[in-house]
Amino acid sequence: MKITLVGTGRVGSAIAFGLTINPLASELLLLNRSRDKAEGDALDLTHAAALVNSNMKIHAGEIADSKDSDVIIFTASVPFRYPEQTRLAMGIENMPILKESIPELARQSPNAIILMVSNPVDALTYETIRLTGFDPKRVIGTGTLVDSIRYRALLSTRLQIHPEDIRAYIMGEHGDSQFAASSIAMTGGERFYPSDTSREMFEKTKAMGYEVFRLKGHTSYGIAMATITILDSITYDLRHTLPVSVMVDGYLGVEDVCLSMPAVIGREGITRILHPVLNEEEQDAFRRSAEIVKQTLVDMEAG
Amino acid sequence: MKITLVGTGRVGSAIAFGLTINPLASELLLLNRSRDKAEGDALDLTHAAALVNSNMKIHAGEIADSKDSDVIIFTASVPFRYPEQTRLAMGIENMPILKESIPELARQSPNAIILMVSNPVDALTYETIRLTGFDPKRVIGTGTLVDSIRYRALLSTRLQIHPEDIRAYIMGEHGDSQFAASSIAMTGGERFYPSDTSREMFEKTKAMGYEVFRLKGHTSYGIAMATITILDSITYDLRHTLPVSVMVDGYLGVEDVCLSMPAVIGREGITRILHPVLNEEEQDAFRRSAEIVKQTLVDMEAG
Amino acid sequence: MKITLVGTGRVGSAIAFGLTINPLASELLLLNRSRDKAEGDALDLTHAAALVNSNMKIHAGEIADSKDSDVIIFTASVPFRYPEQTRLAMGIENMPILKESIPELARQSPNAIILMVSNPVDALTYETIRLTGFDPKRVIGTGTLVDSIRYRALLSTRLQIHPEDIRAYIMGEHGDSQFAASSIAMTGGERFYPSDTSREMFEKTKAMGYEVFRLKGHTSYGIAMATITILDSITYDLRHTLPVSVMVDGYLGVEDVCLSMPAVIGREGITRILHPVLNEEEQDAFRRSAEIVKQTLVDMEAG
Amino acid sequence: MKITLVGTGRVGSAIAFGLTINPLASELLLLNRSRDKAEGDALDLTHAAALVNSNMKIHAGEIADSKDSDVIIFTASVPFRYPEQTRLAMGIENMPILKESIPELARQSPNAIILMVSNPVDALTYETIRLTGFDPKRVIGTGTLVDSIRYRALLSTRLQIHPEDIRAYIMGEHGDSQFAASSIAMTGGERFYPSDTSREMFEKTKAMGYEVFRLKGHTSYGIAMATITILDSITYDLRHTLPVSVMVDGYLGVEDVCLSMPAVIGREGITRILHPVLNEEEQDAFRRSAEIVKQTLVDMEAG
Ligand SMILES: NC(=O)c1ccc[n+]([C@@H]2O[C@H](COP(=O)([O-])OP(=O)(O)OC[C@H]3O[C@@H](n4cnc5c(N)ncnc54)[C@H](O)[C@@H]3O)[C@@H](O)[C@H]2O)c1
Ligand SMILES: NC(=O)c1ccc[n+]([C@@H]2O[C@H](COP(=O)([O-])OP(=O)(O)OC[C@H]3O[C@@H](n4cnc5c(N)ncnc54)[C@H](O)[C@@H]3O)[C@@H](O)[C@H]2O)c1
Ligand SMILES: NC(=O)c1ccc[n+]([C@@H]2O[C@H](COP(=O)([O-])OP(=O)(O)OC[C@H]3O[C@@H](n4cnc5c(N)ncnc54)[C@H](O)[C@@H]3O)[C@@H](O)[C@H]2O)c1
Ligand SMILES: NC(=O)c1ccc[n+]([C@@H]2O[C@H](COP(=O)([O-])OP(=O)(O)OC[C@H]3O[C@@H](n4cnc5c(N)ncnc54)[C@H](O)[C@@H]3O)[C@@H](O)[C@H]2O)c1
Repeated sequence: MKITLVGTGRVGSAIAFGLTINPLASELLLLNRSRDKAEGDALDLTHAAALVNSNMKIHAGEIADSKDSDVIIFTASVPFRYPEQTRLAMGIENMPILKESIPELARQSPNAIILMVSNPVDALTYETIRLTGFDPKRVIGTGTLVDSIRYRALLSTRLQIHPEDIRAYIMGEHGDSQFAASSIAMTGGERFYPSDTSREMFEKTKAMGYEVFRLKGHTSYGIAMATITILDSITYDLRHTLPVSVMVDGYLGVEDVCLSMPAVIGREGITRILHPVLNEEEQDAFRRSAEIVKQTLVDMEAG
Repeated sequence: MKITLVGTGRVGSAIAFGLTINPLASELLLLNRSRDKAEGDALDLTHAAALVNSNMKIHAGEIADSKDSDVIIFTASVPFRYPEQTRLAMGIENMPILKESIPELARQSPNAIILMVSNPVDALTYETIRLTGFDPKRVIGTGTLVDSIRYRALLSTRLQIHPEDIRAYIMGEHGDSQFAASSIAMTGGERFYPSDTSREMFEKTKAMGYEVFRLKGHTSYGIAMATITILDSITYDLRHTLPVSVMVDGYLGVEDVCLSMPAVIGREGITRILHPVLNEEEQDAFRRSAEIVKQTLVDMEAG
Repeated sequence: MKITLVGTGRVGSAIAFGLTINPLASELLLLNRSRDKAEGDALDLTHAAALVNSNMKIHAGEIADSKDSDVIIFTASVPFRYPEQTRLAMGIENMPILKESIPELARQSPNAIILMVSNPVDALTYETIRLTGFDPKRVIGTGTLVDSIRYRALLSTRLQIHPEDIRAYIMGEHGDSQFAASSIAMTGGERFYPSDTSREMFEKTKAMGYEVFRLKGHTSYGIAMATITILDSITYDLRHTLPVSVMVDGYLGVEDVCLSMPAVIGREGITRILHPVLNEEEQDAFRRSAEIVKQTLVDMEAG
Repeated sequence: MKITLVGTGRVGSAIAFGLTINPLASELLLLNRSRDKAEGDALDLTHAAALVNSNMKIHAGEIADSKDSDVIIFTASVPFRYPEQTRLAMGIENMPILKESIPELARQSPNAIILMVSNPVDALTYETIRLTGFDPKRVIGTGTLVDSIRYRALLSTRLQIHPEDIRAYIMGEHGDSQFAASSIAMTGGERFYPSDTSREMFEKTKAMGYEVFRLKGHTSYGIAMATITILDSITYDLRHTLPVSVMVDGYLGVEDVCLSMPAVIGREGITRILHPVLNEEEQDAFRRSAEIVKQTLVDMEAG
């Protein structure tokens, strides 16, 4: 298994370190605008790897070196300047980076699975499908997985139950229009009825990315671990169900846009999209997310 | 963390090997009627442990050596002679083994958690609570965890989804009166509607223990892994939700008997029992299980 | 990665359980004289695997199903009847099993690596090379790895240092003529001078297999873990140095026989044989081992 | 097990992320000059932890919250301004940070083990022993462990042998006077004779920290993994032998200074210091390291 990681900024290098500790590939290639940063990380990680029971080759290079990658993780991006920058503005600035590198990456590895991390993740996942012409099953955005683990972490502290067993999903846009699909949330067979507590937790969840941003200037470890979890399910064909950004397949009348829904992930990418039965409020929220992301796509085109 | 494992037959020694590979304690004490078998396993496992990044002391001994154990795993038993032997008959034969060792084990380790594996597991879990006077939170039977993983394994092959994400529970007696709680089963947010397929899978599940028994003369690895999973949740206070045999707390009007329900497991034992909302058929099945196990207890007393 | 495990007796099924906990392949095929035993283990292990973060297919079958295996682990054997049976007698009885299955296994998987576990392991490793015509780099006997871990475990308890850091090797025959290569033993940079203690530990080591045998009637977990460690180094191309039985390459004038020497193990099998500088006593012991195994081979031919 | 991590800069937060993936404690407390950074990391890591099978509490706080820590990892520091800043200058600037926090940390956790990471690490390890009055067994500097893994990583690529099996040590000062103890280096029982290659590798090793620094502006992952490896050996009392900075015990006539030697590490800290037999050139190098670090200590006092 060969993984190419594009972008070794805060998120990219955290992913690379996580993969060094938990090696999911035999080769990890690091690409970055500043090649020196990628070279420095590759050396530093090679030293760390000497203490791990693995033999993953870690090196830096250029897109040409990515030939025949099995998975491409995309974290390259302009810096996020919160709060003065909107997600839309970020999308407009990131499109040139995508256009510059995605088609060439796809040419080098026509059978790769692409994991999109850069923001706005739903729009960029969609644009990646368009730019590559790849089967949408092979383009996955981290989407609301990171929001879902934040929600589960909050609920876990409250309920004193492991987050893994709190089957609660944040769905829709990885952005302000996301929603907690309470009508399908369960833990240990018990339903989760929406309550003041769960609503409070959801509001906290929605604000969490900004909160971490405010405190440390960026977010990195939660998203890195989310990305590694998706990758784990790909590498070992685990068929885990995870809420990730996918090309919506007509669910609730929505199509031609990427949004997060629970999906099964394996060695071939998305092996199945699940179709939970949502209540009406949730259905509306999903459709609203679709409109917002579609509008972002239009505005990004307009530039 | 000190673990005492009572009984190093097929199940006990498989648990011990699993714990050697995945060390959840600093000390593992093996007790067995034939001390030689326990000594042989301890030596053999010590050799295996030399290849593991751990420092768990593995040794054989007597009940007196179990002093201050944190967890006691009980697999001592008469051999199961299927099909000529009923579970009740087995219970009658196993009671003297329990009476001989459980009170003394409890005296040596008054704060231990006891994991009951021997059959009939629901009745023996109940008797262990009675014999020790322990808070029922600290006595756990493996119950239908093993049936649930068999059910999930079958469904996993059919659905091509990882068993961990198939949140389907077998509840009630670890025996013929068990039932699949279909009304609360979910995977990736999708409900699981009872169907011919799910019914067929459940029938296969119920017969699975006997099938493995017929093929290899005993069952060992599934139950060993189930036990280790419970132990993992205890050692690291993980608070996982697992269907295990517990003293029922009035759920559906049932009490004073041990049956399997989803429960949260941590360093203190059962930290919470969950109360799923079942449909009527399932509720009846749970109550039927209760009656059957109660009758077994009466008959075992009668001996 | 596809692994075929031939023989699901005590050793084989322990290996299979270890591989279920620590999955090193995407497919594990179990073959056994009694197919029912293999089927039973496959089912039981599939249930255990439902609690593991993996997706290894475990199934039973016939040699024809082993097509295109990457690794074949051979544990099929007549039962070992100690002490009335000599190793030579065992070799004579095991040759027909080898002849019956090894050539066909090799035909099905001409590029596989074969791991020989059955006894007498050095002679059977040699015969496997002969029967298959495989490059000797792809035929590995577990050899004195199991003796080395027993020796290290004993030293570890005495020195209070982790066995992994006690770089002491038992070399030569996996049998009575083995020897501890004290002149090259080190721990943390400190040499290990042969002493009464180290000699006593070695004598204990040599007797350890029989001791475990006497206590529990067979040995299984140490050898299972040794086999899994070799396999780990193959699967992930780890290039660990391990004492294993290989076709000796002229070292100390010895050739055309299999004996244990430290070797580097990777995805292609033996990637390099190391040639430690031994003292004279040790050199003589190695040559004596060579003669003994060669004589066994002659006597086995004579049958 | 409670771990307090002081300093959540590049190195500290990489350690915290590594510990989140590989949880070695039940509680991880983060302290940092800017509390916000520590709070942000704690939140971010808590989200990552939701995807890990653990229940480690991760939180930020003040020294008072560190009460009864089992291990304190110290990475607080002024920024390293290479090349205009000497190690001595760094020591002078870091002493006030040590004096401000070490005594209070020691008061809160009088039985803790302290792992020193900040530079100049040998001098600060020594000063920590002096400031706390702790038994030197409970104060460990990461020392040349990081240099040793760099050396092993380089040799591994050349020899195609896993770094773990290349038992080669860099000893002495974590600084320019360090040396490769070639006379005790071994791999798989083969001695390592000093050669042009090994000398070239050592020169590369010595320059490696600066090289990574030049490329990415800091080093983090190698040192983070080294720290986690020491911690692993402490948490599980593994008794691994590792080259770390310890109070030298008269070895080669050296005392009253901290330098790196191979030592055994367990739950109590340094359980034993090993005394390899070095050749004369190496002995001289060790004594030279001692003088250099002693001089640094004098100059730091003069400050
Ligand atoms: N999906 C999520 O949940 C989530 C969470 C956190 C961050 N993010 C997004 O991840 C992205 C990365 O965040 P970060 O904090 O690591 O940013 P960063 O600024 O630290 O890193 C971005 C890196 O991309 C590199 N880069 C820019 N253009 C490139 C190109 N053409 N080729 C290769 N490399 C290039 C830069 O050199 C830089 O190293 C951002 O878009 C951020 O918004 C997403
Ligand atoms: N709960 C489940 O899902 C489940 C699954 C499989 C097996 N089991 C049960 O687990 C038990 C063990 O099964 P097994 O296959 O290992 O049986 P086994 O016969 O192989 O082993 C039982 C062991 O208990 C020992 N023993 C008997 N009396 C003892 C005593 N007083 N003190 C110490 N040791 C004593 C015996 O020497 C023997 O080694 C059985 O009751 C079996 O029905 C339960
Ligand atoms: N190398 C070592 O260090 C080491 C250590 C322990 C055991 N061993 C050897 O491993 C072998 C297995 O030991 P065990 O305790 O598991 O023995 P066992 O008798 O329990 O198992 C042997 C299995 O081989 C099967 N078998 C026999 N002929 C077969 C064939 N033609 N095809 C498929 N399966 C066949 C049998 O049905 C049985 O299940 C023995 O030779 C033993 O001496 C080696
Ligand atoms: N031993 C080694 O092999 C090795 C390797 C790399 C780095 N280092 C050393 O580790 C140290 C940290 O390096 P870095 O790159 O993380 O630096 P950094 O500047 O990124 O982080 C240092 C952190 O310490 C914090 N800090 C300063 N004073 C503090 C105080 N009194 N209390 C709490 N926190 C305080 C700062 O706020 C900052 O977050 C440096 O001394 C560096 O030289 C050692």
